[in-house]
Order: sequence, then structure tokens, then C-alpha cells
Amino acid sequence: MMGKAGLAVSPLAPAAFPDLPVIDGVEFSSAAAGVKYQDRTDVTLIRIAAGSAVAGAFTRSSTRAACVLDNQAKLAAGGAAPEGAAIIVNSGNANAFTGARGQESVDAVTQAVAQALGIDANRVFSSSTGVIGEPLPHERIVAAVDGLARDLRKDGAADAARAIMTTDTFPKGASASLSVGGGEIHIAGIAKGSGMIAPDMATMLVYIFTDARIEAGLLQQALSGGLDSSFNAITVDSDTSTSDALILAATGRSATPEIADLDSPAGQAFVEALHGVMRELAHLVVRDGEGATKFVEVQVTGADSTEDARKVAFAIANSPLVKTAIAGEDANWGRIVMAVGKSGARADRDLLTIRFGDMVLAEKGWRSPDYDEEAASAYMKQQELLIAVDLGLGQGAQTVWTCDLTHGYVDINADYRS
Amino acid sequence: MMGKAGLAVSPLAPAAFPDLPVIDGVEFSSAAAGVKYQDRTDVTLIRIAAGSAVAGAFTRSSTRAACVLDNQAKLAAGGAAPEGAAIIVNSGNANAFTGARGQESVDAVTQAVAQALGIDANRVFSSSTGVIGEPLPHERIVAAVDGLARDLRKDGAADAARAIMTTDTFPKGASASLSVGGGEIHIAGIAKGSGMIAPDMATMLVYIFTDARIEAGLLQQALSGGLDSSFNAITVDSDTSTSDALILAATGRSATPEIADLDSPAGQAFVEALHGVMRELAHLVVRDGEGATKFVEVQVTGADSTEDARKVAFAIANSPLVKTAIAGEDANWGRIVMAVGKSGARADRDLLTIRFGDMVLAEKGWRSPDYDEEAASAYMKQQELLIAVDLGLGQGAQTVWTCDLTHGYVDINADYRS
Repeated sequence: MMGKAGLAVSPLAPAAFPDLPVIDGVEFSSAAAGVKYQDRTDVTLIRIAAGSAVAGAFTRSSTRAACVLDNQAKLAAGGAAPEGAAIIVNSGNANAFTGARGQESVDAVTQAVAQALGIDANRVFSSSTGVIGEPLPHERIVAAVDGLARDLRKDGAADAARAIMTTDTFPKGASASLSVGGGEIHIAGIAKGSGMIAPDMATMLVYIFTDARIEAGLLQQALSGGLDSSFNAITVDSDTSTSDALILAATGRSATPEIADLDSPAGQAFVEALHGVMRELAHLVVRDGEGATKFVEVQVTGADSTEDARKVAFAIANSPLVKTAIAGEDANWGRIVMAVGKSGARADRDLLTIRFGDMVLAEKGWRSPDYDEEAASAYMKQQELLIAVDLGLGQGAQTVWTCDLTHGYVDINADYRS
Repeated sequence: MMGKAGLAVSPLAPAAFPDLPVIDGVEFSSAAAGVKYQDRTDVTLIRIAAGSAVAGAFTRSSTRAACVLDNQAKLAAGGAAPEGAAIIVNSGNANAFTGARGQESVDAVTQAVAQALGIDANRVFSSSTGVIGEPLPHERIVAAVDGLARDLRKDGAADAARAIMTTDTFPKGASASLSVGGGEIHIAGIAKGSGMIAPDMATMLVYIFTDARIEAGLLQQALSGGLDSSFNAITVDSDTSTSDALILAATGRSATPEIADLDSPAGQAFVEALHGVMRELAHLVVRDGEGATKFVEVQVTGADSTEDARKVAFAIANSPLVKTAIAGEDANWGRIVMAVGKSGARADRDLLTIRFGDMVLAEKGWRSPDYDEEAASAYMKQQELLIAVDLGLGQGAQTVWTCDLTHGYVDINADYRS
């Protein structure tokens, strides 16, 4: 079975794209505009109904793409969309490092959408993903807009998830539903991301929709509070995209009371469900990490601070030596020691404990007396692995997710542009 | 042609090990102690004559090995060696994360050397390199010491360079000679290093010897001043070793005046020659980077500060996406833009210039009008590459060296322990 870019589907992919609930007030359409790829959809339009609220999170790269800067400027004025909003996304070209022409492309595309849908261009958000530094042939996208506007439909999320793929080998979606005040709130999201994945706000393209009734400021707060345990807690290759963006829209069409306080029972339930969807989408990105064959959770506890825990967790999750050892199914915990050592966080050799799954490999500055090389090697053959490090110093904790570094990663990235 | 670990010799290796000058007052011997490897030398003893001065630089890893801590403690008391000094090195086992037993091993080995050579154990420095977390069978090294002491000879540096190899595919040496006050000063160094190479003081094993007459404090100053442009300016895989150490010894046996001031003409000439040897050894480590097929110089200029230049240079040099593109001979300058963006240094898209060799690829926030894809692709086929980034902001500059990320790296590191 092959993915869109001719790559075999990741062995870590879910069996199927999930059944996403329809979100009242959100419609999707996708088309093949020929931006770069042939014979596949590569552009998606999403219409968000009047009265919605929009929130976002974006890459902090200092060389971020024109569309990211444009989205940030538009959201800085607030996320209310009394007359509706739209999102237009293309794959194949990132429109990044394309000089002044980059913004011209964004303007052309977003204005075409605004005209086709009869909304303000300031409420049209856009994303581009693909090669950096090539001029975006935006006229091809503009030419597709009228057709996209005609084809909008409520059940188009799965097709949209496919149209935004680049080196992704499977489309990514996640959802949640919760009962609030006798009614139901639905949340559905799609994402793309596979390489150039390292956390700095949001490091991929993610679109999440809900019918919850919640105003834009609170929506943004609910979103921001979930980043550090989802999209900012994953890494494939330590590289951070110039383009990545998460947009969350709430249509307010659910038959539930307005969420006016995130600390209320309904607010808490909504935040928890939203963060669950965010985490699930983030995990799917790691599961589609370029060349990945292992899904790895790195749990760090006992650090002096959350920041120190984060440093250690990412030093492990980004280490090429740790990641190649995992690819080779080698229980090389010495490389975990190395990564802790280089992280810059305070660590004391004699207080460090390292576990793989339930097995203690190292403790008290030394290989554990219970260490069993055969059991450790058998554990490494699993597809889902847990590496747990306790620093024994304080209360700082952070969990992050990563994948292994394989020949597949080298294959994909030594040859991406050709 | 195969290297010691059964790996093909790096295509970037020099044609032959250089003819190192004999340093009066330094003797070497090597033996096969069977620490881990079979049928090869794996332990080296170096005797440094009475009246020498010793200086050092060590990894800053918080999980550094017992021998590193021991060397640091011994040098903290000063580098003078009125009754002589010695260095004992083994490959195959790093004696790192081996608990209290690690120090016991260091004591056993250094005391055996002290006894065999009739010097103070506080002047016996030691290094261990290889697998982390396995107990060091130090009795095998101790058993070899008497033989090593008997076999010491002045021309043993090349054999020593071989005995300290782990995943290295070729032995590394460099030298310089300079005329001072009618006499000659000689400098000769050997190094090992191939993976787990990222700069944090000294990130490999390096031993440099000179017959210069210079006291220990000045010698340390001369050494420290050269780290940022040599061993702290290279990276293979962004991973920092727990074990690495550089030891520099000056025997004072040259027929030249004492160097009492590094700013004097003789002092400047010595420092320049020493730094040249350090840089050459550092480059040899990159040329033997695990799986390397390209030697890459990354020059960053025009940054707000040296620190910013360093951030950008290492963001590029450590980026898996940049390094796989180089492996694939793909002139993917968009990934340079990405790396600049994620570095954390201040950057302005519209002031950035990117060159590969003499070719300007990107300038003024945009692909250069002179950009020639064919010429850029032809350039990437070379074995030695220059990536130059000018940020257009200030005077901060840093040059670092790295290699590409290939299937060879994955092969070597997915399978190191087995």
C-alpha cells in the first residue's frame, strides 16, 4: 500500500481514517489545482459559518512564511467572525522565503476566496506547505477557487486531510464528543505533518473545528493551554517548519449553553476534550514521522523544573544516536545517559533512574542489578516504546513523543526535491 | 580497504597518516589488552618527561565519565609535572555511568602506571572510550601496564593513534614546526573521534605534545583560546560524549627561549601553530564522521553577535534535513532558510544572503536572479562544500564544520553494541 508521495504507508498508521463527526457550520472542498503534484488533490477550502470564533497558534521561526505572518496579523485583531471565515490550504509549495511576492500570493488567494464566499478578506486564513523558496504559482489556486466554493460540503474533512498531505503517508484526523447541559459538543480536527517536525508553537498544519459556543478570547486560551502537552511535545527530526499553523474554529451551533468560564465543569470538560484531540493529532504526526518504524514516549520526571525536564526529554527525543539505536532495536541505555548529560539540565549520576517500559535498566549511577539484556532486547522489538527517566531531584516533569531514525528518513530527505 | 571496526575507510580520509615529528620527552607504546576488541591494539601509554607542563580541556556533560572527573581534579591542582607525567588510554569501553566502580577502575589503572613509571599517581591522566554503562575490566589494562612501560618509544605516535580508535575508520594525526629564536619548536597531536561528536569543550580524545618551553598556566591559556575555532566548532551528530578529553603537554626540551608571553612574536607564532594543529585534528574527526561522504564548512557572518552566529551555524550544521539533502547532493537551500529560522538568532528574511561556494543562491528575501539550478546541483557533487550565510545585521561571525547524514550513519549506529 503506497501513500500519496509514492512512499509506503507508515507501519505506525492507524488502520483507517476515523469517522469524524460533522461540525455544524463547517464545510470543506478539495480539488487538484496542479500547484506541484500531478494527479492528486492539493488545495482545500474550508468555510466557517457566520458567528464563529477563530483561534490560532503558529511557528516562531524567524523565517516564517508569508501566509503565517498574514494569519498572525489577521488574528491579532481578534478572532470573532460575525460574517464567517474561511481557510484555504495548498500543498506542494510552502510560499516561504519568496520575498515580497510571498505576500502578493497570499493576497491574491485570500481575496479570491473572500470574493467567492462573500466575506471579508481579513477573515480568510491561508496555509501553504511544501518546498521552500520556490515562487507559489498562486494563479493556479485562484483559478480553482470558484469550483471549490461550489463543491463545499459538510462531510469533506477526510478529503481535505488527504489534499493537505506532502510527505505524509496517511491522512490524519481525530475527534471527540462531550455532553454538556443536555446537549452535545463535537470536536473534529485534521492535520498534516511528517518531517521538519520540532515543536515551536505548532509545527505542522492543523485545523480543528467545534460546534461549541465560546467566544474567541476563551477559545484562544483553551487552545494555548494545550500546546505544551501536544504539538509542542513532539519531534521527528528537531527541525522546525517555516510554515506551520494551527487554526481552531468554534461555530457555536451546538445546542449547549455558552462556555463562559474554562474553569466551570462544562469549560473543563471542553478543554479536556479539545486537548485530547490535539494530543491525538500530534501523536498521528509522530506516527507518520518520515521513515518511522517505532512510536516512542519519553517521560522525564524528578527534574529541578519543568524547563529542565523538557530539556532532558528533547535531548533524548532528538538524539540521532538514541533514535538510531531504537531503529536497530538496541536497548542502548548508555546513549540515554549521554543525552541526559548533554541536555544542559542539572543531573546527578547517582540519582538517575532509567526505565524502558517497566524494566529498570539503570539506577544509582550504575547498571541495575536486575538488568536483563535479553528482556531489554525483547522489549525493543515492540512498535510502541516507553523510555522513562527520573532525575531524582525535584518535581519537574515533561512527556514528549518521537520516532526512530531509519534508512527511510535518509531516503526521503536525500531526495525530496527531485 | 577496511578500518579497524570492519567499516570501509571514510572517502574523506587523507591518503596516509602524516609523518609526525618526534617530540623530545614524549614516548608512546600500545598493546592489545583485550578490553573489548579482539586482534587489535586497544591500550596506549604515553610517558611525558620530568619538567613538562600539562593542560587540558574536557566535556561539560553532566554525566561525564570517571576518568574525565579524575583528570579535571588532577589538573585543578595545576599542570606542572616536575617529576614527569603519563597518559593511559583504552578503547572499547568508556567507563562512563559505572557508578562508584568507575573511580575504582581509574584508581587501579593510574596507580599501576604510577608504580611502573615511578611517578606520582596525581600526574597520571587517563581516558576510556567506547561503550557507556558497562563495567571496565580494568584488570586487563593493569595486566598490560608493565609491558607497555617496557615498550615505550619516541616514534610510537602512529601506533597510539590506531590503538585509541573505536568507530574511527582511520587514525588521525597532525603536526606543526616553527622557528623561534634560532631554534625549532615542534607540535604533534593525535586524535580519535567519529560519532557522538558535538562541541562542548573537547568532544573526542585528543593528545597534543610539544617541546616548547612554556609553563602550565600559559599553556592552558594557549589551549583554551583555540577551542572555539577547532574542537568546539565541529559537529557530526549533535551528540556530546561523556568521555572526551584533550590533553596538551609541553616538555620544554626545544632549544628555544621560554615562551613567557603569548602576545610576544614567539608566543603568537606558537599559539597560531598550536591552533592550526587543533583545527586540523578537529577537521580529521569530521572527515571520519560516521557514514560521512561530504566535508562541509558552514560560514556565518553578519550576525548581531558571535553567539547568534554560532547558533545559526550549528542550527545548519546539526539539521538532519540539511545533512540528508547534502548526502543526496541536493542544493536544497530552502532548508538553510529553515535552519536559520529555527536557530533562535535574530534574522531578517530580506537581509539574508545564502551562498554555496561562490554561487549566490538567495538574497534579499528571495531566490537570487542569478540562481542556476544546474550549476548548484553540479557544485553539490563535490566532496568538500562551503555553505555561507550572511545575516546582514552586524559583525558576529562563526565558522563550523560538519559532514552529511547518510545511510552509513544509520548502519553504524543501529548496530554499534552488537
